[in-house]
Amino acid sequence: MKEKYTSDGKGFVQDAGNGLVDRRFFLGGVTTAVAFSGPASAGELSVEPWMKLQGAPFVGYGQPSRFEDKVVRVAAALPNAPGTGATRTPLHLLRGSITPNGLHFERSHSGVPDIDPSVHRLLIHGLVKRPLVFTLDALSRYPHESRIAFIECGGNSAALNQKEPAQLNVQALHGLVSCAEWTGVKLSTLLDEAGVEPAAKWVLAEGADASGMSRSVPIEKALDDALVALYQNGERLRPSNGYPIRLLLPGFEGNMQVKWLRRLKLTNAPVMTKDETSKYTLLTPDGIALQFVFPMETKSVITQPSPGLAMKEPGLYEISGLAWSGYGKIDKVEVSADGGASWALAALQEPALSKALTRFRIPWRWDGGPAVLQSRATDERGNVQPSRAALLGKRGPKALYHFNAIASWGVSQTGEVTHVYA
Amino acid sequence: MKEKYTSDGKGFVQDAGNGLVDRRFFLGGVTTAVAFSGPASAGELSVEPWMKLQGAPFVGYGQPSRFEDKVVRVAAALPNAPGTGATRTPLHLLRGSITPNGLHFERSHSGVPDIDPSVHRLLIHGLVKRPLVFTLDALSRYPHESRIAFIECGGNSAALNQKEPAQLNVQALHGLVSCAEWTGVKLSTLLDEAGVEPAAKWVLAEGADASGMSRSVPIEKALDDALVALYQNGERLRPSNGYPIRLLLPGFEGNMQVKWLRRLKLTNAPVMTKDETSKYTLLTPDGIALQFVFPMETKSVITQPSPGLAMKEPGLYEISGLAWSGYGKIDKVEVSADGGASWALAALQEPALSKALTRFRIPWRWDGGPAVLQSRATDERGNVQPSRAALLGKRGPKALYHFNAIASWGVSQTGEVTHVYA
Repeated sequence: MKEKYTSDGKGFVQDAGNGLVDRRFFLGGVTTAVAFSGPASAGELSVEPWMKLQGAPFVGYGQPSRFEDKVVRVAAALPNAPGTGATRTPLHLLRGSITPNGLHFERSHSGVPDIDPSVHRLLIHGLVKRPLVFTLDALSRYPHESRIAFIECGGNSAALNQKEPAQLNVQALHGLVSCAEWTGVKLSTLLDEAGVEPAAKWVLAEGADASGMSRSVPIEKALDDALVALYQNGERLRPSNGYPIRLLLPGFEGNMQVKWLRRLKLTNAPVMTKDETSKYTLLTPDGIALQFVFPMETKSVITQPSPGLAMKEPGLYEISGLAWSGYGKIDKVEVSADGGASWALAALQEPALSKALTRFRIPWRWDGGPAVLQSRATDERGNVQPSRAALLGKRGPKALYHFNAIASWGVSQTGEVTHVYA
Repeated sequence: MKEKYTSDGKGFVQDAGNGLVDRRFFLGGVTTAVAFSGPASAGELSVEPWMKLQGAPFVGYGQPSRFEDKVVRVAAALPNAPGTGATRTPLHLLRGSITPNGLHFERSHSGVPDIDPSVHRLLIHGLVKRPLVFTLDALSRYPHESRIAFIECGGNSAALNQKEPAQLNVQALHGLVSCAEWTGVKLSTLLDEAGVEPAAKWVLAEGADASGMSRSVPIEKALDDALVALYQNGERLRPSNGYPIRLLLPGFEGNMQVKWLRRLKLTNAPVMTKDETSKYTLLTPDGIALQFVFPMETKSVITQPSPGLAMKEPGLYEISGLAWSGYGKIDKVEVSADGGASWALAALQEPALSKALTRFRIPWRWDGGPAVLQSRATDERGNVQPSRAALLGKRGPKALYHFNAIASWGVSQTGEVTHVYA
């Protein structure tokens, strides 16, 4: 499928079928020979109204432009419980890898509690030498660590198990994943203070919301990179993301990263809470459910272009997307414009951090014909994102959680982009 | 000044005078033997009101907790021009290295313009082969890049030139610096499209605010790491930070990173705008002003503890702060608790990125006696942050811009923290 074009300063090298261009194309100082914009002179620039008026005064806490009022999370909640459900990040309208705090996805089981931080406490007890209770003031004196990490809901992308491709956009299909710089105290530091008994193998984490959301976490994760997170992108956690304390378990399914954290109990066995028995288990074709599948698998999705973002005319575009793995760093992302018949290597934005969203990009010359866009991520452990057929073949047609299959965007001759199976 | 303590699991190793503890202290699994918190049992945890009620429903764009309403920027503006002046980031209330978009510092010369992105244009003209004008739609098709970068106002920390230490907090003294993940199109890509004439040595950058803020940028910087930034921490730029387009010149003084960017004119000499002649020049003791001093110098400041954040009782604390350099990566930060008589190496948060805020930390056992806390940064080029005396000695008592001297926080026996000279 490889077609090669000579590169004479106006041409380009094609890396795979249907218009994908070498990822270094723009980086070598080669002009695109595509007029995105017409010749112009200074006189053609209008003096707009905002250049003639004193602008708005300062405010203490800033907000987005009023012209960006469609860049919001979209909620799906139970009719009689408006805080029970989820909101999804508008990934198709964002660029970079950090999710701004106002747009971080959320999943709540009984709404967002209005917690007074001066009253809130964190208790560590169970199989420890000395149970301890921490105020936020006390936690502030411990050494803090920061890390950029994604959080993905175990149920993200589950709509890809439907028989026909759901006509939804990236936000609705894949918007239960976000990424932030989290800062707090390593859980291992606090467990060292309490003194872990040798019999302790699990940690029950419990939230202070009305549902008392709770999950069992293996002690190995608690002593590895688990963080008692207090800050999100520099400021205190947002209420919808666990204010004033949440558990951060980098790479693990979001449900375990208990928000509004109030209690950690060390135990010798998992507690078998509702959310690790009736939910968040993986049903296999033979009817057996897999329990305690923690890391989110290697995955990627193209965010631009994507369903709802129509392409206006043939020409050169940037295909851009996000890749992540709960097992470590993203090693590579390949992109196809012909439904998987051929693949080209995308550029990865450095630094590509472990268990963080990684932005990938590749130029694409759309010739105005039909195309099917796909991305396929591989992580540093060699885990490769599977095709939808392979995932369903392995896990059966009821596969729901941990749905990390390749998504496909069809591009029509009019430039419309839709969710397709390919 | 070095005092060594045996480390038997309860003791600790002191790295410098007056209580500074080795930065790896907390990392080796050694218990602190400091009870920050009392023994406790699950029964002692109250069931708070928010555990008994359905919480708040979902919202499209989230906001901080109402309990964080004091975490805001503080403005200093001209009496008759409420948008002319600056707001400062509350660095003493933040942790990590990213500044959330609502708290990024701002400097405006005629308020924040309310720009309609569908009307806004970017013109590139002057010494180019073909002048070009870009819509935002056109820019979206070019390859994007992301980088985490600090922006610091050239006038940050200028109050340290006062004869007596200004009794202000970190926000008021040093809050004209912030850090974000910026995403946009490399300026070199757009200049390649326009075709740079050999005679072009400078680029005039002009904003679309009513003041027409403009600066001259050397062509070397424009072709190096300059970014036409469109996104800030994933979402579109905030209005106060240049929506919909700003120039990002990593490491350079903030004033040059023109917001609301509308025009780039390539010239053979600097244009000598108001803000590079009457302001943002460095007066030296012999009366000669240095012009075009672009990179912000190597610098650091302790954010916790700091003036206004009183310490309640003797014991173990974490000293935490930020370091940065317009010349590249931070190589090391040293901390003193005895006014510079002895220094200990702080831990740096990885990844320590070039031209980005870098968080440093060191544990400190405060014995309840008087102390003077200082931090001193060194960057990868070997630039060392100077003492206040050294900076004033070199640049004279009127030194104002690019004031990167070491700041000193005095700790009294009651735990009060104040700005001092030492």
